[in-house]
Amino acid sequence: MQDMREFFREVAAAAARETLPRFRQANEIANKLEAGFDPVTEADRAAETAIRRLIAERFPDHAIVGEEFGRTGGSSDHEWVIDPVDGTRAFISGLPLWGTLVGLKKAGRAVAGLMSQPFTGESFMADGSGSWYEGPGGPRQLATRDTRHLGDAIMCTTTPALFAGDRRAAYDRIEGQVRLARYGTDCYAYCMLAAGHVDLVVEIGLQPYDIVALVPIIEQAGGVITTVDGGRPEAAGYIVAAANAELHAAAIELLAGG
Amino acid sequence: MQDMREFFREVAAAAARETLPRFRQANEIANKLEAGFDPVTEADRAAETAIRRLIAERFPDHAIVGEEFGRTGGSSDHEWVIDPVDGTRAFISGLPLWGTLVGLKKAGRAVAGLMSQPFTGESFMADGSGSWYEGPGGPRQLATRDTRHLGDAIMCTTTPALFAGDRRAAYDRIEGQVRLARYGTDCYAYCMLAAGHVDLVVEIGLQPYDIVALVPIIEQAGGVITTVDGGRPEAAGYIVAAANAELHAAAIELLAGG
Repeated sequence: MQDMREFFREVAAAAARETLPRFRQANEIANKLEAGFDPVTEADRAAETAIRRLIAERFPDHAIVGEEFGRTGGSSDHEWVIDPVDGTRAFISGLPLWGTLVGLKKAGRAVAGLMSQPFTGESFMADGSGSWYEGPGGPRQLATRDTRHLGDAIMCTTTPALFAGDRRAAYDRIEGQVRLARYGTDCYAYCMLAAGHVDLVVEIGLQPYDIVALVPIIEQAGGVITTVDGGRPEAAGYIVAAANAELHAAAIELLAGG
Repeated sequence: MQDMREFFREVAAAAARETLPRFRQANEIANKLEAGFDPVTEADRAAETAIRRLIAERFPDHAIVGEEFGRTGGSSDHEWVIDPVDGTRAFISGLPLWGTLVGLKKAGRAVAGLMSQPFTGESFMADGSGSWYEGPGGPRQLATRDTRHLGDAIMCTTTPALFAGDRRAAYDRIEGQVRLARYGTDCYAYCMLAAGHVDLVVEIGLQPYDIVALVPIIEQAGGVITTVDGGRPEAAGYIVAAANAELHAAAIELLAGG
């Protein structure tokens, strides 16, 4: 699927032309919602527009769903899912942990995906034949690592504060067992999982556009990603991603009780 | 002080030759302490050795203090303070938020400093004449921003879990007031403060080698950095860094009660 990777490179470049000049610039932040804190930048809107244009040119019969501009129809069973800037809180804080997410579903199942971080020059791509890294250090195929026990695992989550009640108690149990927990890593965490640097990502309250692009990157690198009750992850919500089936089962066992 | 920046560039390059090839490689992690989690890599040791060599060649009468190899004497009132890999938890998780820290104290006061992040290719330097960025986007002088109110501020900290008892309550009060809190950002947070992307960094339990290099980068960008009781920050411990004096005073008022 060299063609798909070439298309992803075009998509990443087009998105970067809109996001990168606005990264670490002030005055670009608008609040999408009047109440609460949900920042979105011009980068978000301009990048989604650019990505939609490329998809529509190349795959005119495919549906497109984006964080900013909703759904546009398509006659095939293919649907693209876009989050032009995942990790807007990182983006507005100057931290290079945000990414442009573009995923492709076929008959409801995520089959290909891109995460692009243009400041570091990294892309993580799944094309059906595997998961691939391009960026500093040179290109390579991605593979999750074989950490089997929670006590050896590095885990990422947005913040424990997002888990409430029994779910917080269950989350705290797992954080108490892992070797190390990192917060605030957004889409970057899933790519570090696919690349074999971390072992577990646990996140709650996700939207489909937060996760569809990342599902194939993890699965095609050998990882396991589901909802907390073991279902397919495309529906988003409460997601558990792990480097392998054994670690995933151990995490689900602790978390599903919550 | 172009000379000092040139020296910092040499130091950053020498450190990067030791750290970067080991970043995102497994099997390099040793535990420095038998009990607890305090990872250190070969990168840490090799980079400190390389930095010490450069300092000793260029400034033979200066003292050197490093995280890995302790203190070596010097007859002058100049002392270099080195943390070859600050943010080892980010390092072992594949996240490009760690940095090489090299600071210079004169008569006990931090006067020059370097933070280098070789994966992103960024350096943040203070040389007595100002604070400077070199990296993607091109070189520029750093300046903190003029956020005056906690409600508008972006704050960074390692994790709230490090604050205990009354101090945790005080920390939670400030996190409840700021616009946004980010965790786990280590030395990178102080550089984002100097660069005007975030407004406040609050951290506890710091060692001098965690902070001495960052003090001039913040002060020479217009920021204010002290211990929580308002003292000079070189002693480390509980540190409050802010974009300006007004925001710093507001933070100290909330935190010092804890």
